[in-house]
Amino acid sequence: MDNTVYSSYPPQLDPAQEAYLVTTIKDWAIQNGLAVRPHPSFVPRETDSKGVLATNAPVTLFPSPFPRSCFEEARALQTAYNQLYAAITCDEAWLGKIMEDLIDVDDFISHLWKVHLAVQKEGYAQTLSLGLYRSDYMANIPSNSSASLKQVEFNTISSSFGGLSSRVTSLHTELLGTPGYPSHPLLDLSIPPENTAVETLSAGLAVAHKSYGPPKSAPALPLCILFLVQEDERNLFDQLALLQQLTRVHKVPVFRLKSTEILNQTSIPSSNPARPLVYHPPQSPGTQYEVTTTYLRCFYAPNEYKSERDWEARTHLERSAAIKCPTVLNQLCGSKIVQQVLAETTGPDHLAKFLAGTDSNTISRLRATFAPQYDLSSSGRGRELALNPETAANHVLKPQREGGGNNIYKTDIPDFLRSIPESDWKRWILMELIHPPASAKNVALRSDGEVLRDNVISELGIYGTILWDQKGGNVLQNEQGGYLLRTKAKDVNEGGVATGFSSLDSIVLF
Amino acid sequence: MDNTVYSSYPPQLDPAQEAYLVTTIKDWAIQNGLAVRPHPSFVPRETDSKGVLATNAPVTLFPSPFPRSCFEEARALQTAYNQLYAAITCDEAWLGKIMEDLIDVDDFISHLWKVHLAVQKEGYAQTLSLGLYRSDYMANIPSNSSASLKQVEFNTISSSFGGLSSRVTSLHTELLGTPGYPSHPLLDLSIPPENTAVETLSAGLAVAHKSYGPPKSAPALPLCILFLVQEDERNLFDQLALLQQLTRVHKVPVFRLKSTEILNQTSIPSSNPARPLVYHPPQSPGTQYEVTTTYLRCFYAPNEYKSERDWEARTHLERSAAIKCPTVLNQLCGSKIVQQVLAETTGPDHLAKFLAGTDSNTISRLRATFAPQYDLSSSGRGRELALNPETAANHVLKPQREGGGNNIYKTDIPDFLRSIPESDWKRWILMELIHPPASAKNVALRSDGEVLRDNVISELGIYGTILWDQKGGNVLQNEQGGYLLRTKAKDVNEGGVATGFSSLDSIVLF
Repeated sequence: MDNTVYSSYPPQLDPAQEAYLVTTIKDWAIQNGLAVRPHPSFVPRETDSKGVLATNAPVTLFPSPFPRSCFEEARALQTAYNQLYAAITCDEAWLGKIMEDLIDVDDFISHLWKVHLAVQKEGYAQTLSLGLYRSDYMANIPSNSSASLKQVEFNTISSSFGGLSSRVTSLHTELLGTPGYPSHPLLDLSIPPENTAVETLSAGLAVAHKSYGPPKSAPALPLCILFLVQEDERNLFDQLALLQQLTRVHKVPVFRLKSTEILNQTSIPSSNPARPLVYHPPQSPGTQYEVTTTYLRCFYAPNEYKSERDWEARTHLERSAAIKCPTVLNQLCGSKIVQQVLAETTGPDHLAKFLAGTDSNTISRLRATFAPQYDLSSSGRGRELALNPETAANHVLKPQREGGGNNIYKTDIPDFLRSIPESDWKRWILMELIHPPASAKNVALRSDGEVLRDNVISELGIYGTILWDQKGGNVLQNEQGGYLLRTKAKDVNEGGVATGFSSLDSIVLF
Repeated sequence: MDNTVYSSYPPQLDPAQEAYLVTTIKDWAIQNGLAVRPHPSFVPRETDSKGVLATNAPVTLFPSPFPRSCFEEARALQTAYNQLYAAITCDEAWLGKIMEDLIDVDDFISHLWKVHLAVQKEGYAQTLSLGLYRSDYMANIPSNSSASLKQVEFNTISSSFGGLSSRVTSLHTELLGTPGYPSHPLLDLSIPPENTAVETLSAGLAVAHKSYGPPKSAPALPLCILFLVQEDERNLFDQLALLQQLTRVHKVPVFRLKSTEILNQTSIPSSNPARPLVYHPPQSPGTQYEVTTTYLRCFYAPNEYKSERDWEARTHLERSAAIKCPTVLNQLCGSKIVQQVLAETTGPDHLAKFLAGTDSNTISRLRATFAPQYDLSSSGRGRELALNPETAANHVLKPQREGGGNNIYKTDIPDFLRSIPESDWKRWILMELIHPPASAKNVALRSDGEVLRDNVISELGIYGTILWDQKGGNVLQNEQGGYLLRTKAKDVNEGGVATGFSSLDSIVLF
């Protein structure tokens, strides 16, 4: 693939052009809800005790080039990926066997698994399950090779930035039509592809809401969707874009509820074996709602469970009749370990099993998006590659543990492994490095107004939604639509301290 | 009119309701561009040196009641008002006579008049003139009387808040449909009337742009509209709402230019007798534009002319071939003195003259919106009313001078007049007080996040646009649409220090 696309991009900006572009973008962002609440390191809490201030989300000044073949492949595979993760979630025995191995080394996964077991014992009150997914990729472009698509991770919970990323696409598209926007051969030819992330994700939630059926409470309560959110969410406008679409277009009542308030403001009447989740809005004590769908924008990371009460709240949601987006089981499917097991080239063909109804061409294309990755728990290919400095140089060592520490890169790997007890090696996964375009560059406007230019790495995310019946695996809806391009300043030593920026971006295909 | 409408309004809020409502509003505002840049007293410049922060515009939590009859009357009269002010602008002799009297007492008006005279001497290069107006009213509801509409002022320059006010209408309309919004008999019956301020004002600008005709420059340049704005505009999102509509819907290129940059970034080629106004965007040195329309969101107040250079800039615009919104003459028509002369009940019937083609019923309804007001330059009704404490009690004394000092209220008037030389009395206008509903109350969310409840006074503004030919007075377009309700906390003594709030609002008709 032609790496020169990247070396001549983005166009040069003289100071007047940059000033104009930055002003236009920071104003456009506020005008169009492409916003975040400012970080306390930028605006101290005492300055804004009421929390009214907002600033632009971090964005690139230019859309980033991305190979058209990779983008189209990612879109083409998304519904198969949705199907795959629904099927894995349905195979509780398979998943249980994998989790068993992890329970020793990972408190978080162990805790989640216990929530599942507890609810399983009582019996799940809801068999429908909703996935709002984002499959993240890089374009792998080693020198002198053609571009291929490699998956970084598959998000099964709190897949974020759909709301803001569609606005970045609008921003870049409008800028391209603006007089004075610097010209470049790539930009003269095309505009960013349409981004329907908001429509797709909202439609997924709306279909779940509708599929819930009539109220289970007696007397019947009005139905609603609940967004469960973090206490100090700065990225709320991303969530509000979905909420607004659900209320304006789908006419579904939606409430946002902080995770700390779940046990205070929702209940499951003990007298009702159907276990409806009842929401008691404090602003409207006379009215109660029955929750059809719980959309989690919280509870995805270990540090969000600060006490036993948070685990209680998660269990409370899980045992209710609300459709979970996602269930605990579906969340667990997004673990690194699952990705690694799927990618194993020896042993049973998991993909063929989970995608039994899918044509073999699609399955092999999907398999081709896996970066080679290895378990280090026992002797074999993984250990060989990791301990040999020559092969280690093309790999990264990632902690198995969710929300774990830093990665170990390249030739640091052999010495690092030898410095820890061999019994701990099973806590790590070895992944072949993905080679994003080495000369990619962009300019970003951060949320504090700083403008930085740097070498960058871009990750493409494709959004998908799927609604299925966990009992039997019947799929009621399976869609894809919309994308995220997230562009980060490249760390000089890849493992060092991250400075620079991480920005929302859009795409110019080539 | 039933004053009890106001005494039972707005609905009570318990703390949970208020917290929910305030959170919803402050988030909605940022999500939907109902925003302002924060005042430096709230966010110090050193905290936000790049100027990226924004906050919600000040808004009421509830739409305010407004008599339907008054609202409909104001809308019905707007195109006649547009016509009136266009006709006055065309009658340079009439206007000149009024201005002559003022030149002694008012530097600002004197300066503006000189700009007109200078351009007149050279000859105007453009005969089309665009008005984007806002006629401001109060509902006059003295005890035991029915409501009537009384005009506060007629804005002929920089009529602002069209962009934000239409968003406040959307906000209140959406809130009314929100579960948990407090109920009230008034709110159960109706939603705020549709607000088309953005569409109306943008369409006015677009029609002027189109009516400009082909470029006058040779070789022909692309055409654009220029928004002339203040250096430190905090209300820019209000302007951007119009700009966005013009670019997205009307496909007209629009630039914002600070008034201080007019002489740097625009020119009139001396070799071209048509005097096109050429814009040189610094971000795009290779491209020049010919300006069809200059939309002034600056240069309306005396304190904006800091040096001779600002007057030069204004003159530069005025002598160009661009359609001015407004011309100096049209701006002068918005002076208090014009309002007062029109309202005179003795002497010539100015309304009948300026609205010669308008039916007499409309003319008398328009006349009925004038609050009685008197010139104090000579003996007569005005002086009588002002010096008698009994009649003074129903009046306010306003400085003739534009951008002048404080008003003198009620029984303070006789003593005040006696304390100054009689020769200075001509600098003041006596106006009969308007009696807005005494018990009106509302709750407002300020831009710094404070929530205040108070007795309030609301002013209704109706937007209108008119494009006419100053030579002959032919009207090419005359429209009305959209409104502003601005609601302020009532000063305890009406003349004291203004604390509290001044908020954007919408309307519940009754």
